[in-house]
Amino acid sequence: MVNSPLDSLLRPRSVAIVGATERSRPDFVTGLRELGFKGDLYVVNPRYPEVHGLKSYSSITEVPGPVDYAICAIPAPAVPGLMDDCARKGVKLVHVYTGRFGETGRPQEAELERDVLRRARKGGVRIIGPNCMGLYSPSMGIGWTDDFPTQSGSIGLASQSSFAAHDFILLAKSRGLRFSKVIGYGNALDFNECDFLEYFTEDPETKVIMMYIEGVKEGPRFLRTLRKAADAKPVILIKGGMGEAGARAAASHTASLAGSTRTWMAAVNQAGAIGVDSLEEMMDYAVSFTFLGPIAGPNVGISGSGGGPSVLGADQCEAEGLKVVPLPEEIRQELKSKDIPIWDWIGNPVDMTMTGGTVSPGQLLSMMAQNRNFDLLIAIMGEPHYQKRQAGTTADAFLQRFGLLQIKEKPVLVVVPDKSLNIDQYESPITRLMSDIRTRLTAAGIPVYPSMARAARSARMLIDYYKRRKGTN
Amino acid sequence: MVNSPLDSLLRPRSVAIVGATERSRPDFVTGLRELGFKGDLYVVNPRYPEVHGLKSYSSITEVPGPVDYAICAIPAPAVPGLMDDCARKGVKLVHVYTGRFGETGRPQEAELERDVLRRARKGGVRIIGPNCMGLYSPSMGIGWTDDFPTQSGSIGLASQSSFAAHDFILLAKSRGLRFSKVIGYGNALDFNECDFLEYFTEDPETKVIMMYIEGVKEGPRFLRTLRKAADAKPVILIKGGMGEAGARAAASHTASLAGSTRTWMAAVNQAGAIGVDSLEEMMDYAVSFTFLGPIAGPNVGISGSGGGPSVLGADQCEAEGLKVVPLPEEIRQELKSKDIPIWDWIGNPVDMTMTGGTVSPGQLLSMMAQNRNFDLLIAIMGEPHYQKRQAGTTADAFLQRFGLLQIKEKPVLVVVPDKSLNIDQYESPITRLMSDIRTRLTAAGIPVYPSMARAARSARMLIDYYKRRKGTN
Repeated sequence: MVNSPLDSLLRPRSVAIVGATERSRPDFVTGLRELGFKGDLYVVNPRYPEVHGLKSYSSITEVPGPVDYAICAIPAPAVPGLMDDCARKGVKLVHVYTGRFGETGRPQEAELERDVLRRARKGGVRIIGPNCMGLYSPSMGIGWTDDFPTQSGSIGLASQSSFAAHDFILLAKSRGLRFSKVIGYGNALDFNECDFLEYFTEDPETKVIMMYIEGVKEGPRFLRTLRKAADAKPVILIKGGMGEAGARAAASHTASLAGSTRTWMAAVNQAGAIGVDSLEEMMDYAVSFTFLGPIAGPNVGISGSGGGPSVLGADQCEAEGLKVVPLPEEIRQELKSKDIPIWDWIGNPVDMTMTGGTVSPGQLLSMMAQNRNFDLLIAIMGEPHYQKRQAGTTADAFLQRFGLLQIKEKPVLVVVPDKSLNIDQYESPITRLMSDIRTRLTAAGIPVYPSMARAARSARMLIDYYKRRKGTN
Repeated sequence: MVNSPLDSLLRPRSVAIVGATERSRPDFVTGLRELGFKGDLYVVNPRYPEVHGLKSYSSITEVPGPVDYAICAIPAPAVPGLMDDCARKGVKLVHVYTGRFGETGRPQEAELERDVLRRARKGGVRIIGPNCMGLYSPSMGIGWTDDFPTQSGSIGLASQSSFAAHDFILLAKSRGLRFSKVIGYGNALDFNECDFLEYFTEDPETKVIMMYIEGVKEGPRFLRTLRKAADAKPVILIKGGMGEAGARAAASHTASLAGSTRTWMAAVNQAGAIGVDSLEEMMDYAVSFTFLGPIAGPNVGISGSGGGPSVLGADQCEAEGLKVVPLPEEIRQELKSKDIPIWDWIGNPVDMTMTGGTVSPGQLLSMMAQNRNFDLLIAIMGEPHYQKRQAGTTADAFLQRFGLLQIKEKPVLVVVPDKSLNIDQYESPITRLMSDIRTRLTAAGIPVYPSMARAARSARMLIDYYKRRKGTN
């Protein structure tokens, strides 16, 4: 059962976009249409008779049907008046996209912001924002751009920065992640981080909670809420404005007062949540929680690449806290019994360039998957020195050689390195091939990471997370 | 003047490839042809009358002309005999591509390796290898694959792992780097890391020295050589086998005994060289030394992206040791005098999404370039939330808006983020556009990094490097 007031508010039967034009960026009308919003959609703008083919009303009070949710895209000075109109119309929730309030650092704009809140409170209207992109809900068909996926997923994200959320959604797409809801909430004038966290904790569609926060509005409540949330689901948090300049930037971005780094990290960890340093790390962890279950221990078997890259890969795994155990004697004996000439030389990581076709990565991974010495497996593929060798290979053949889709006994993580492509590398068949492989692996529910270090760090995070939960439950 | 014996040895007038076939991988014959080797090229292989249209001799002693340089691609047991033949023929240098010597960990193979060295020494033949790809020299037209650029550059790389070198060369291509020479040297049976380091120190074509080392053969000589090299040129080193497993893998890769991490790093730093943790970091530093001069101090001006990403970018700069100073009052006044309505709100990093067309990134970067408060500038571009906004933009228009090519007053670093592309993102015009921009910036000599953190770390490295040199000179 969901007690959060946001639960019903985020399922509006009708939406009015106030201040929409055909040239608006973001174009909420097109966003809602393309994402498949099923309820009534209204446009309010006295300057146009219609917008994108919809009749445009001169005031929200003139909209014929009820309006559950309004998106406010009019200039800041007009927003207090809109709150009065919304109260009269019975609008329950207003997403104030409009910016240039408290975040400007100017007294007059800060006073305007307070006036908006006063009028909303008086009229019983709740607010998301101002200065934000608001809600992306694929199941409702609400969002600020038609670039976003129409399918739902299990990640709930509340982000004080809507651009960070925007980037995250688009980058997450190619990592195989989909969202239950994303809320870009800006200055957090009314609903704040605590409300969103409570909502996601209760929301059955949300399995993993992620937050980007610049400033916490209600410290003690946040820590209580965070503890409860982290008890229920994995919670991954990033704090913007950890440094001096970042804090200054956060103030002029969402009028947030950033606290000290050390206090923040300590509090987050104590609450059982996972604090991260970058959106990349956040993404890796979201991938890990989505595609992997618990990992029992740190002992990793690596299907490596050429010699040097394998050596460096092993170093990186150890630096991130994994244990690259020696290849067990049972596997050596099995290789010997199969007449593999290099049975005594193969190690862990397996240097796949020295096997010379005598044993495939898939065979070795399968042996490691069945061996009790390993808790997890990592396979690297697609490093540049394979370019020549793999010319003409299909994604199917490549994946078959690694046999990753068949491994059920152990968690498997795959590394397909990112590349800074130049324009002339676009036509390279191997680049396309590796993209194809990344797409297929992700579609098959196998987590893919852009580097060995990031895969190893993610694995270590999961080990620690499940160990801690086992200790507390 | 170059005293290193390698100097003349690496400029052979004739090359014989021993054991070449038309199906060999690597295909040295095609490599040398496509890279434009101008000297005499011979093939030695008694099993074929000709290989790739070249007459194939049954023994190196039967080659009609003199042979300066031989590439040995025959099975390990036949290599000692080849050394005798090479001695008779007067071959000066043999690159032993052949592997399965000491690195197998087997006594018999280790003895075979010692036998190779004994016979080479006796006959006055020098060796690169065994178990490696040997020389890539674009100016000579020598290399192990035709994937490599034919143009020369200023980076000299000696790598105990040839696959690490191979990956590095190909990835460096899109970062705008070119090489004087690359030497993949494997087991370092004869010429070792000290010899290559001495050679690169003297080589006038080499401006930056890079090394991947798994084990040092001659400790005291290496430190002496390193100190001398680092006095002359930037030297960037990575050590494979820093962890336990990596050390084990290094032993079975190039039969190297890895030392302790801490000792290594301390010694490298004391010698004035730059130790790195990953090939990515090595690449970033190579880019930095190639495209940037000294950076006077840590004060950075940032042309940022949306609010949240700008906040995080500032945090990352500070975490890497840069100072994101507030926007100077002079610039605010200049903005005010130009009637920019948000003159008092714009900060550093500049949140480019809030300027709303009133001032371009180029104008702000130019003001920061002329202001004495900044030592360097960093511009981010191409983050996903720009996708819609930039649809239809050309690379020219994009670059013009940022005005990067006009900035002469300060070092400029650009961030174009890497993306894990899926197959369906291939056709995205913005992805192509960003690749195009990356290509043009690199061609114009502007360093491009795949993330803010990596750009900031590179800048900090340069600041420290030139500060240290100023202190010692």
